[in-house]
Amino acid sequence: MRTIKIHCMSVFLFLLAFIVSPLYAGFGRPDIKSPEVHNDRRVTFRLLAPKAEKVEINVRFAEKNQPMQKDPDGLWSITLGPVEPEIYEYIFIVDGQEVADPSNPWLKLWRSTAKNLVEIHGNEPMFFQEQQVPHGTVHIHRYNSKSLGVTRGLYVYTPPEYETNRDTKYPVLYLLHGLGDIEDKWTDVGRAHIIADNLIGGKKTLPLVIVMPYGHTPNTAGFKNFGNWDEFEKDLIEDVIPFVQEKYRVSPDKKDRAISGLSMGGAQTLTVGLSNLELFGWIGAFSSALVGRQYDQLLAEPDKINEELELLWIGCGRDDSLLGGNRNFIEQLDFKKIKHVSRITDGAHEWSLWRRYLNEFIPLLFRRD
Amino acid sequence: MRTIKIHCMSVFLFLLAFIVSPLYAGFGRPDIKSPEVHNDRRVTFRLLAPKAEKVEINVRFAEKNQPMQKDPDGLWSITLGPVEPEIYEYIFIVDGQEVADPSNPWLKLWRSTAKNLVEIHGNEPMFFQEQQVPHGTVHIHRYNSKSLGVTRGLYVYTPPEYETNRDTKYPVLYLLHGLGDIEDKWTDVGRAHIIADNLIGGKKTLPLVIVMPYGHTPNTAGFKNFGNWDEFEKDLIEDVIPFVQEKYRVSPDKKDRAISGLSMGGAQTLTVGLSNLELFGWIGAFSSALVGRQYDQLLAEPDKINEELELLWIGCGRDDSLLGGNRNFIEQLDFKKIKHVSRITDGAHEWSLWRRYLNEFIPLLFRRD
Repeated sequence: MRTIKIHCMSVFLFLLAFIVSPLYAGFGRPDIKSPEVHNDRRVTFRLLAPKAEKVEINVRFAEKNQPMQKDPDGLWSITLGPVEPEIYEYIFIVDGQEVADPSNPWLKLWRSTAKNLVEIHGNEPMFFQEQQVPHGTVHIHRYNSKSLGVTRGLYVYTPPEYETNRDTKYPVLYLLHGLGDIEDKWTDVGRAHIIADNLIGGKKTLPLVIVMPYGHTPNTAGFKNFGNWDEFEKDLIEDVIPFVQEKYRVSPDKKDRAISGLSMGGAQTLTVGLSNLELFGWIGAFSSALVGRQYDQLLAEPDKINEELELLWIGCGRDDSLLGGNRNFIEQLDFKKIKHVSRITDGAHEWSLWRRYLNEFIPLLFRRD
Repeated sequence: MRTIKIHCMSVFLFLLAFIVSPLYAGFGRPDIKSPEVHNDRRVTFRLLAPKAEKVEINVRFAEKNQPMQKDPDGLWSITLGPVEPEIYEYIFIVDGQEVADPSNPWLKLWRSTAKNLVEIHGNEPMFFQEQQVPHGTVHIHRYNSKSLGVTRGLYVYTPPEYETNRDTKYPVLYLLHGLGDIEDKWTDVGRAHIIADNLIGGKKTLPLVIVMPYGHTPNTAGFKNFGNWDEFEKDLIEDVIPFVQEKYRVSPDKKDRAISGLSMGGAQTLTVGLSNLELFGWIGAFSSALVGRQYDQLLAEPDKINEELELLWIGCGRDDSLLGGNRNFIEQLDFKKIKHVSRITDGAHEWSLWRRYLNEFIPLLFRRD
């Protein structure tokens, strides 16, 4: 009887595979695991490329491209590490051409292309990794921008219990992305929602709403008119903020409204924030791309800034090519005796830094002490 | 004076490009446009691969792989079409290996790999393309599944004006994904939120909430235990539905609760729906993977099904390898005199069909006539 049962099961599994296989058709070899993260924090990368002559990997934790080894089946592989817990970018280089890892569906989709991501966990989850705390919600909107005459995307994070605490009004952080990004990047790669969940769960901040708008506008996409944020400012103030205040229970008090951003978004933050001191009480500029604009003009009234702002926070990595512009800006703040917090830290122009900055910046916000 | 002004501008632009270029570093050639969709609905695909000997494209609207042409710089290209307005999958094949288009950030991320997507617009937006109607919101949740002991993802669509009509309770559709998918696919590729926006805006349906849960469970991922949906059923009924009913203003009436899904999700829909007639009033199964389970057992009480269900809707494409199983199921429904709507249509096992089915199914729901 047992034999018959096994035979029936075999026939069933054979038929199942036959029937279901079209569902998998055309999707490469599912048996190749890449990246494979080992328990000791080493990582193995694999790529099937039998005809390639040279395959390398460019991965953020290695100084230069690392050559991969080919087996007789044409499967190239390399094991690297152990490395520190972090989210790292990588890409394969096949005979000189960048190729995304076909076995890894997690990519950082940039405006024109993509890099794969690999996440390394330590013994305990890091500040940007999901912990055993209550989780908030990320909301994806499309809104009609009257000021720009187009329909645009907008992401909003609400804290845990937002949906059930129906009488609470929350403070709100407007969080801006970089030149190569769109409105999903602060969650997809920046993990703003998880960082906020962990800070709230760990009682390091009060619950807050985070609004992540789309930073490009019809006349300023990419390098075009870089440094002119008039359209963005108009959309943010006349469309995004009213939309958020209509849809969400957010406080209308400027002491409950902050703005921050990275790179291009840092430049937008300083321009829009310092030009609208009646709207924003807290400003944070991460690795800002301070070019194409007279920023001293924004600092023309030091006394007013000191009076109106609760916090002006500037951060930049020592290995960032934008460090010079940020240092100049900080010197101007010092010269004009404008109160601020400046943080020149380790790191380059990259997401690992911006996740850390956000984790440091949020707990400083909305304090009344 | 004009000359000097131009020179200053040139210097500025040169410096700007120099300063900002690190923001673009490592992201391939931004000057390659691929795919380029022309106004006449032809499409040009391009790939820089100077060392490749043969580059082809596999694109859904062409019968077989199409050979691309190489120019002296090693840029391969091909122009195809004109084609009907639709979202098409494609992938490059470089010397026999599938390679995603590095110039196109829109990919359908499958469990183990990705295919690029290209969207063709007609003169008017199609039913799955953004129209001039009010837009709803897509909400991304992480919830603790007590029944599975893990934290899982969940997408929820709410209709336009949900946030402001604070006294309305909405009917709700539970919409399940396929074997290769995760919980974001019904929005990212299926465009469920846009289809719903357009149907609501066009008065073809009343506003509804759509809940898109994650369909894999710890003991049934992929082919493992395919056909055993016990864990999924437990999570849906004991965790997902209570979570939604706590967070959202949805009607608790079963005449306001529908379930549908595609492929694996279609099989889950039939199993969970027909086993829980006290919970669901409307059932829709799209291209269902009816294997590994005695479905006639679910049809053991025809009278009860006819009494309890408002609608049982079955659809499958003529070119789908799962057509046989669906035809058998429909024959059983006929034999047992169970009321249903069956739709055998043009099409294969693919998203263009499932978008059409959803667009046809939603307007049938929640009617009281």
